[in-house]
Amino acid sequence: MSYQLHYWPTIQGRGEFVRLALEATGANYVDVARQPPAKGGGEAALGRSLNDPDNPRPSFAPPFLVDGDRLVGQTATILLYLGSRLGLAGAGEADGLWTQQLQLTIADAVAEAHDTHHPISGNAYYEDQRDAALQRAKAFREERIPKFLGWFEQVLKRNPAGHLHLVGNSLTYADLSLFQLVAGLRYAFPKTTAGVLADTPLVAGLHGNVSRRERVHAYLQSPRRIAFNEEGIFRHYPELDG
Amino acid sequence: MSYQLHYWPTIQGRGEFVRLALEATGANYVDVARQPPAKGGGEAALGRSLNDPDNPRPSFAPPFLVDGDRLVGQTATILLYLGSRLGLAGAGEADGLWTQQLQLTIADAVAEAHDTHHPISGNAYYEDQRDAALQRAKAFREERIPKFLGWFEQVLKRNPAGHLHLVGNSLTYADLSLFQLVAGLRYAFPKTTAGVLADTPLVAGLHGNVSRRERVHAYLQSPRRIAFNEEGIFRHYPELDG
Repeated sequence: MSYQLHYWPTIQGRGEFVRLALEATGANYVDVARQPPAKGGGEAALGRSLNDPDNPRPSFAPPFLVDGDRLVGQTATILLYLGSRLGLAGAGEADGLWTQQLQLTIADAVAEAHDTHHPISGNAYYEDQRDAALQRAKAFREERIPKFLGWFEQVLKRNPAGHLHLVGNSLTYADLSLFQLVAGLRYAFPKTTAGVLADTPLVAGLHGNVSRRERVHAYLQSPRRIAFNEEGIFRHYPELDG
Repeated sequence: MSYQLHYWPTIQGRGEFVRLALEATGANYVDVARQPPAKGGGEAALGRSLNDPDNPRPSFAPPFLVDGDRLVGQTATILLYLGSRLGLAGAGEADGLWTQQLQLTIADAVAEAHDTHHPISGNAYYEDQRDAALQRAKAFREERIPKFLGWFEQVLKRNPAGHLHLVGNSLTYADLSLFQLVAGLRYAFPKTTAGVLADTPLVAGLHGNVSRRERVHAYLQSPRRIAFNEEGIFRHYPELDG
């Protein structure tokens, strides 16, 4: 039985954190909305799944994961579910909670990155909230990117098991998600992020190491990896990079 | 041994979701930063704990919980940890994940409520971002409060175990957190929230039922419940309520 991931078919978005966990472990999965419509693919089908009136435990938004008769929504909860099954959550309860705590901090950074281009409303165009976006992006560049990446640098530095992983000495979904956060920041804010990564060499090293893992590397080169674009969470609007 | 909650001493904020879980179950805990400085209380001591350079697993921000040699940060992760210990996470893994999924959706709503008064930067004064705040609050009132509370109404309506709880037929931390979200929205956006609650009677009912639970009621009447104020997440600025 394979996992079914349900997420928007044309962006990395929050679904990418789940895709990375599945890809990095060679898990068997179907990215449902990217299948042909005859196989349940497409945005219309995703909308129907999301809004199925007979589902007693609906998700507020994509992504959600189906595993047999189990249905789990919210990116971090999906990773909590997959983490223990795919061996991506460290060893024992304490590591598992710490991995999840790291994931939620990454999720906070991701939400803030989104709001740099949509500081007023997710339902309005960027162009109609550009003035506020310029202000919010400035604060994000100056105050938040350094604070988030600086904190992860400290976490790596203080890890008693070594500085190559966030949790213990093996890969967790928090490592994969930090890779994705850095990749997104590099795409959206290339100038700013290059400057911050120069001061956070362990974070930069983790990003590089994850990208060179055999399965991750193969995934990133494959057509399954959707390119960053200006419909997703991390968008490159040069004026927002200062 | 009692739990130690570390959070800002003068606001409900995100710490309140943890306080409610502890209070509703009669758990033994110390709200550390609200103790006298001689007992480790005060904001300066909280800052020192947060920034302890010898802590290998630091939190990005308060709240964090200490339980013996365990230290857990991020509100939802703290509740994940406490949920199973305090009997507030339903029965079994599926209920536990669903409770956490609900909590993360509440956390999303809380973050958006915060950003209505700080749409540009958490480090700048409200007065210096008031124009953007007026716009963001309008979108939050018109698009987001109805969407979030409408979704929770559906969850309650579809719960096969009855419409009084979000998960199964007993209290979980998701119920307590939804109570707190509604309480905060009623404080910050009284006109808007009254209108939405008229259309979401099960959510309104849950808020009332939780507030009347014996331990919750006693807590809400006690000096331990900090009043809502304009330093916290839910702030009443009448101009933002339309």
